[in-house]
Amino acid sequence: MPIAPARVAEAAELAGRIEHFTVLVDGEVAVAELAACAEARGVTFPVMLKVDCGYHRAGVDPDSAAAVALAARIAGSRGLELCGVLTHAGHAYRCRDAAEITTVAEQERSVTVAFAERLRGAGIAVPEVSIGSTPTIALAGDLSGVTEVRPGNYAFFDAFQAAIGACALDDAAFLVAATVIGSHPERGVALLDAGALALSKDEGPRHADPECGYGVLLDPAARRPLAGVRLTALSQEHGHVCGAAAAIAALPVGARVLVVPNHSCLAAALFDRYAVARGAEVVAEWHPVRGW
Amino acid sequence: MPIAPARVAEAAELAGRIEHFTVLVDGEVAVAELAACAEARGVTFPVMLKVDCGYHRAGVDPDSAAAVALAARIAGSRGLELCGVLTHAGHAYRCRDAAEITTVAEQERSVTVAFAERLRGAGIAVPEVSIGSTPTIALAGDLSGVTEVRPGNYAFFDAFQAAIGACALDDAAFLVAATVIGSHPERGVALLDAGALALSKDEGPRHADPECGYGVLLDPAARRPLAGVRLTALSQEHGHVCGAAAAIAALPVGARVLVVPNHSCLAAALFDRYAVARGAEVVAEWHPVRGW
Repeated sequence: MPIAPARVAEAAELAGRIEHFTVLVDGEVAVAELAACAEARGVTFPVMLKVDCGYHRAGVDPDSAAAVALAARIAGSRGLELCGVLTHAGHAYRCRDAAEITTVAEQERSVTVAFAERLRGAGIAVPEVSIGSTPTIALAGDLSGVTEVRPGNYAFFDAFQAAIGACALDDAAFLVAATVIGSHPERGVALLDAGALALSKDEGPRHADPECGYGVLLDPAARRPLAGVRLTALSQEHGHVCGAAAAIAALPVGARVLVVPNHSCLAAALFDRYAVARGAEVVAEWHPVRGW
Repeated sequence: MPIAPARVAEAAELAGRIEHFTVLVDGEVAVAELAACAEARGVTFPVMLKVDCGYHRAGVDPDSAAAVALAARIAGSRGLELCGVLTHAGHAYRCRDAAEITTVAEQERSVTVAFAERLRGAGIAVPEVSIGSTPTIALAGDLSGVTEVRPGNYAFFDAFQAAIGACALDDAAFLVAATVIGSHPERGVALLDAGALALSKDEGPRHADPECGYGVLLDPAARRPLAGVRLTALSQEHGHVCGAAAAIAALPVGARVLVVPNHSCLAAALFDRYAVARGAEVVAEWHPVRGW
């Protein structure tokens, strides 16, 4: 995300310790702060200029005169080095299928490349053109003019990505193992020992599947979705599974299930250890880097 | 939550290391597993029997013959010690005001005490009667017959508890400091550098306040809600603030805000360090225990 002005001094420290350290900006305030800090400390900040390719969250308007002026200011500042332009097509998450994603992917590429060309036409060097979001990179076709892709949670995928057509459910590599701790076929409810603290509480792709619930329940042996049940609610430590009596009866107390979370980035951040499995066998334990 | 049968061996290990270690049960399967493990290892498990006081998530039905039979089975099992009965009035979270919470609080107490009395009438010793949920304990009046209260997130409270009348907004002690990294009065949007990884993604008390968004934004000096703005959406690392042009103009890039999260339990679990403040002064740093 674009750097907060108050974080510039911290960024200067990091830039001295990390080989490839790039700062993201999309506005005057942070650029002025960075330039002043670079001058005061005698350091150089590599800078990427964020451009809005249609998500309308962060990034400069690629058609504005202000965007070119900001790029020129970065390029002309002693202590700042304009490495390139960067975008994130977060609006791809609003797509409902692969065809829609493919359209956004081409928009992400073409808007960003055109902006780079516009800057180059104004005499500003733009070495890098960086694009990235999980859905668009999963389905990107043409990458002409792009020098870097940031593939989001491509390593893990999740139930959200599967629902909008960015991957198959089988591609989801981050699974939460849970155990049934309550089973009440007569009221159509089972309880899992995995709630919001294990799965996070992302509402999921409700625009594409209003019945998506909080993740997809898999049979741990077949790795296929459990028929007739949905993970309809999460409380802090419990997952609430709803279904017809027969489907709940197939989930007695003690049964194991796997959950494909809605948003693997948020769920993965809740764990200090990952068990790495090949088929049913755990072959390694990973300790992810966490923290702020 | 009620113990998963597969966790019984792990519980036996912990029981040997922790002075007061109690296992929660609400069904036959876990009781049988615990009794078998206790016999095999020659250990004794202190057990609390969970009762459903109206939330209908976990717990035995207090009016059922099966509930008394399960209590008798625990009390009569070598290796199991029935310490008492326990409930959680999670349905208090569905309340809209203090009066509704007070009614649920009395239900939580009276149902649980009556169940304990019923067991005692059947000749079963019930030393402890334990109740607890954040809203009900915040507003509990009569505690007759209760020996233990578990006050939930009473230490922190949050925007959810304030919205349903369990506390005042001023009582919320867990705040997330954030910085404005984008400000667009013309489109009525500002961006914070705090998203779902800082605040969690709890939907909040929408039943009591459909406009609640993902937390309450406070002025960091006055500690009062910022007028005319709402935290309407969270992406992974960004908070999206919406409001009229003038309200957004009062949040320029670099401005600091404090966020009262919807659900402090989930948000607090995302941080490895807490800065403890008295007024504006940070007086200590706490390192919470995390993990599974």
